[in-house]
Amino acid sequence: MRVPGILAVVFLTFTAGMLIAEEDPVMKEAQTTFAPIPLTPPPVKGVTPTPALVELGKALYFDPRLSQSHNISCNTCHQIGLGGVDMLPTSIGHKWQHGSRNAPTVLNSIFNIAQFWDGRAADLAAQAGGPIQNPVEMGISHEHAIETLKRIPGYEALFKAAFPTEKDPITIGNVEDAIAAFEATLITPNAPFDKFLRGDANALTPEQKEGLQLFMSKGCSTCHSGINVGGQMYAPFGVVEKPGADFLPPSDKGRFDVTKTASDEYVFRVPPLRNSELTPPYFHTGKSWDLRQAVAVMGNSQLGDKLTDGEVTKITSFLRSLTGDQPKVAYPILPPSEAQTPRPEP
Amino acid sequence: MRVPGILAVVFLTFTAGMLIAEEDPVMKEAQTTFAPIPLTPPPVKGVTPTPALVELGKALYFDPRLSQSHNISCNTCHQIGLGGVDMLPTSIGHKWQHGSRNAPTVLNSIFNIAQFWDGRAADLAAQAGGPIQNPVEMGISHEHAIETLKRIPGYEALFKAAFPTEKDPITIGNVEDAIAAFEATLITPNAPFDKFLRGDANALTPEQKEGLQLFMSKGCSTCHSGINVGGQMYAPFGVVEKPGADFLPPSDKGRFDVTKTASDEYVFRVPPLRNSELTPPYFHTGKSWDLRQAVAVMGNSQLGDKLTDGEVTKITSFLRSLTGDQPKVAYPILPPSEAQTPRPEP
Repeated sequence: MRVPGILAVVFLTFTAGMLIAEEDPVMKEAQTTFAPIPLTPPPVKGVTPTPALVELGKALYFDPRLSQSHNISCNTCHQIGLGGVDMLPTSIGHKWQHGSRNAPTVLNSIFNIAQFWDGRAADLAAQAGGPIQNPVEMGISHEHAIETLKRIPGYEALFKAAFPTEKDPITIGNVEDAIAAFEATLITPNAPFDKFLRGDANALTPEQKEGLQLFMSKGCSTCHSGINVGGQMYAPFGVVEKPGADFLPPSDKGRFDVTKTASDEYVFRVPPLRNSELTPPYFHTGKSWDLRQAVAVMGNSQLGDKLTDGEVTKITSFLRSLTGDQPKVAYPILPPSEAQTPRPEP
Repeated sequence: MRVPGILAVVFLTFTAGMLIAEEDPVMKEAQTTFAPIPLTPPPVKGVTPTPALVELGKALYFDPRLSQSHNISCNTCHQIGLGGVDMLPTSIGHKWQHGSRNAPTVLNSIFNIAQFWDGRAADLAAQAGGPIQNPVEMGISHEHAIETLKRIPGYEALFKAAFPTEKDPITIGNVEDAIAAFEATLITPNAPFDKFLRGDANALTPEQKEGLQLFMSKGCSTCHSGINVGGQMYAPFGVVEKPGADFLPPSDKGRFDVTKTASDEYVFRVPPLRNSELTPPYFHTGKSWDLRQAVAVMGNSQLGDKLTDGEVTKITSFLRSLTGDQPKVAYPILPPSEAQTPRPEP
């Protein structure tokens, strides 16, 4: 009688586990609304991310010689060790000029529908070339950037390895593709929320789970959904109630500047909330330093719902469950400048 | 007869090898003048470099929140991937101000007799605190820096692990010791020249070996000696013939500003030449972008010797044999700022 007894226990335990998962309505709803970060980087459109291509992209990502001053790299504003941001309201660019919007995180950016706060770049490659030539960011023309790379002799072999079939591979298009291929590796899997989405009911604390439930029932997840808990669509900021000018200055009309369509006034790409505890300050102005404040402001402005302190605590707690394994990046050794390399113009 | 024959060949080969080594006068002189970079980091005075201490030091080294703007870290001017420098004539600091001298490399700096061009810091720990509070560099008071670290909650555990016996370990002294412990790991062993110094006669090309011979016979090694091929003593720049004001502006009197001793006018710490092909531009002004030019200028100004083109080529070739294995550094993940963390003041 022992063996059947054990089998019965095993069977019952197994069945109970399935029932818990199947009957957990919060998990079930979450699984239809969000998706876990995959464990390995996803494919990049139009690019085969060979190790040589990713290695080149990493070198370019860290190379300050892609700026006019030779002092600013992609990593200056999107630091791998700081949640993929610079933790500044707006970034400091060429000659200490300030950008107009808070730098979005590079982490998991491959999963966004488009890049920049206004979605003006369709993908990572299209984004990568922007800051290089933006006068208030890296401030160098694409032509000058390519000329510089061509006169850093060590880059030739890196480009040849990354683009083996091309005769003259040092082009801005290839620079953008290589940076995009590297950026696509910067994903943060294994957050508690990912484990929960994969069926581990204990991956979230009770408070986090209540926060998740509120996040869905209050309507946050109407916009903040999908793999990045945001980044999948556009929405007007202040749809119910305009927040103060600190958070929504009238001068920045968001996606309207891209589409010139009246209905896009003050519309922005819904910010992805992955790793948001690592990425203060918040909003496109970078004017909120407090995740709790940001949650409360969103309740007012987007949902017309004055969240209680307890609700803010629970939702913030849920947001902290979105922090995943941060990328392990070996700092790249860059090829040296030589006598013929164009000089910095600081 | 076979076995004794083989033994004889082995014996002769072995003896010949020893004779080559013993009779190679260039190698012999080099071995008395220089020393190889050790394969593992050396001890740091007064500090036990535990893994926790080095890890803390690495985080601090990369953390821009040790600057007033939260935009400048140690790595901004001493980049791990750029030969330990920023490849600028003089560094760009707080509010885009320029430093007054070229940033020396952090690589192998543990082997220098003192730090800074004028040797005003006795060791790495004493150096580390300088740029933090220099108004044209990171521009933050030590008090403000410590207050910031104390209000980044994740740092508490890192300091506790690094200084387990201290009750209140977040101090500027510990910040400096931790950064020094990390910097001491940034050594570059296994350069061709190191292999040559260890007895491998083929580690240098014939041209490099001729360059080494010239480097010693012309007198360069009178000052550029020891483990860092420099960095071991002080010497006046322009001892035989003053170079132009581009390279030696009258306003910067070097070590005189530290000692107020007339004989220290235009005296500088002899620059270490390790990895010099990776660290343009050259001189304390950072005004020479060409290693060949730097060699020729030194011949004129220090030796009164107008080196021929061929001699410059050979010596430059020897200098390229000083490039060792660059440090493998995993980019550190920094603890996030929170609502109570002091804000950047850009």
